[in-house]
Amino acid sequence: MSFLIISSQRDPKGWVQALKEKQPDLDLEVYPDVADPSKVEFALSWKHPHGIFKDYPNLKVIASMGAGIDHIIEDPDIPKNIKITRVIDEQLTRDMSVFVLALIMDYIRNLSFHYCSKEWKPTKYLRPEEIQVGIMGMGILGVGVAEKLIRNKFHVTGWSRTKKEILGVTTFHGDNELNNFLSETNVLVCLLPLTSETENILNKQLFEKLPEGAYVINVARGPHLVEEDLLEMIQKGHLSGAALDVFRKEPLPEDHPFWTNDKIRVTPHIASVTNPKTVVPQILDNYRRMQDGKELEKVVDREKEY
Amino acid sequence: MSFLIISSQRDPKGWVQALKEKQPDLDLEVYPDVADPSKVEFALSWKHPHGIFKDYPNLKVIASMGAGIDHIIEDPDIPKNIKITRVIDEQLTRDMSVFVLALIMDYIRNLSFHYCSKEWKPTKYLRPEEIQVGIMGMGILGVGVAEKLIRNKFHVTGWSRTKKEILGVTTFHGDNELNNFLSETNVLVCLLPLTSETENILNKQLFEKLPEGAYVINVARGPHLVEEDLLEMIQKGHLSGAALDVFRKEPLPEDHPFWTNDKIRVTPHIASVTNPKTVVPQILDNYRRMQDGKELEKVVDREKEY
Repeated sequence: MSFLIISSQRDPKGWVQALKEKQPDLDLEVYPDVADPSKVEFALSWKHPHGIFKDYPNLKVIASMGAGIDHIIEDPDIPKNIKITRVIDEQLTRDMSVFVLALIMDYIRNLSFHYCSKEWKPTKYLRPEEIQVGIMGMGILGVGVAEKLIRNKFHVTGWSRTKKEILGVTTFHGDNELNNFLSETNVLVCLLPLTSETENILNKQLFEKLPEGAYVINVARGPHLVEEDLLEMIQKGHLSGAALDVFRKEPLPEDHPFWTNDKIRVTPHIASVTNPKTVVPQILDNYRRMQDGKELEKVVDREKEY
Repeated sequence: MSFLIISSQRDPKGWVQALKEKQPDLDLEVYPDVADPSKVEFALSWKHPHGIFKDYPNLKVIASMGAGIDHIIEDPDIPKNIKITRVIDEQLTRDMSVFVLALIMDYIRNLSFHYCSKEWKPTKYLRPEEIQVGIMGMGILGVGVAEKLIRNKFHVTGWSRTKKEILGVTTFHGDNELNNFLSETNVLVCLLPLTSETENILNKQLFEKLPEGAYVINVARGPHLVEEDLLEMIQKGHLSGAALDVFRKEPLPEDHPFWTNDKIRVTPHIASVTNPKTVVPQILDNYRRMQDGKELEKVVDREKEY
């Protein structure tokens, strides 16, 4: 029985080290140099090449290295009996909360405008208590961000697929309540999981429901956003701008119009990075559960896609 | 008896409106069109032309429009018997706290670097709990900023002339404790009043006491900072950079080296602006106290200069 690491776009070294440190006798294989694929029952993966899992006849679990599992389920060739798990990393939630707060503080105080313009042009500023932040996606990250913003005096609302109750947050859910949620939102923050239902959700029809001058923040996944629609709504003046940390193609191509639009603030996917050391214990715990035939933790609902 | 407004560098309209609204029968004069200077007993002032007060033989009080009174006392021709008052504006403290938090969030998450560079260059980020912010000046603004930062998980220390006790803040005071205060400070925030003792306090000798890589924020007054010393210490790599909102000459001249130094983030004196409506009641209250021969409030200690 062996444990496979797949990390074809990033160096897996940190993961190998953290796993070996915690469990020195682990029978570890690193893709693509796998001695005997039939021995692999557990794969820890980030952005695997599609179709490879058919070469692992005894695979039982694919564990995501991060909170998102869209990179796994977008591969149509994964058999339905394979369990998919994610990690929950409190540090990741804290980092995301600080990052979203930083983006909104920058917006209300116009910092990057002043820094980048290199001109003495005082502008009026907004205050937290004047801003309603609407968060789409009230999972662990969404709730963490909401709490951080509330502690800093912002008004916060949340929208999610199913009904949620969160202290201090006015919550909306489902398609029926989306318009009500949007109509009062000054700063929209997307923290949705990427699923077939949420892909392209940040589009023209949605932006039109926001009040004039609204600001859009996407820290979830690039495919949530219809890029042309954002550019059009900013150009028309309906949206005052956007802060984007994720993109359909990363790195964002050098000739992409986002780079030169002075209403769009681009960051290179830096909101939060999973620390292998922090999450290796929960991954190894699931590995042992699988070996012992016990129920796994943090299993993804294949129907809901999150 | 008349009430004089002096605001030679900014339009006094907002002040005239707010005063008239609150006390329609006020005998108001607006500098320089003063019918009878000998009638003026109370002057509400911001950056008056030096020497003018000798033309007002019956002047008893000069009230600053803002929290700072350095612009008044730097005029050597003001008779010692004239009382100087300042305003205390809670909104101003809140605005300053939000602004300093925004500057520090920008620093730890590298936002402006990413925004302005227009390149895909992910960098490591710092976390609030890894940062010790040292605040120089623990008056009302300093304490407000400290509380805001503590609520956002930063470690906060404070230094002031006299001993202060503030919940959650390690405090230092006086010249003897300055080195200890500086030696552990990663982000130095200047919120001192400008006095003859604090002018030029942000200089090479002080910067050398900070740990390597420290970051400097000046949101107090331009003359606190020796500009050449800051440039030198950044160039040497001892300081990682600075965020400056105030300058010796404002607007900052177009050819000033701060504009083109990519380690220095310039904002055009926007930390917080006093709202006439908010503070007019306390100014009129002092005006009535003067008329009634009562003791004034928020009087400045002419010896301490704040």
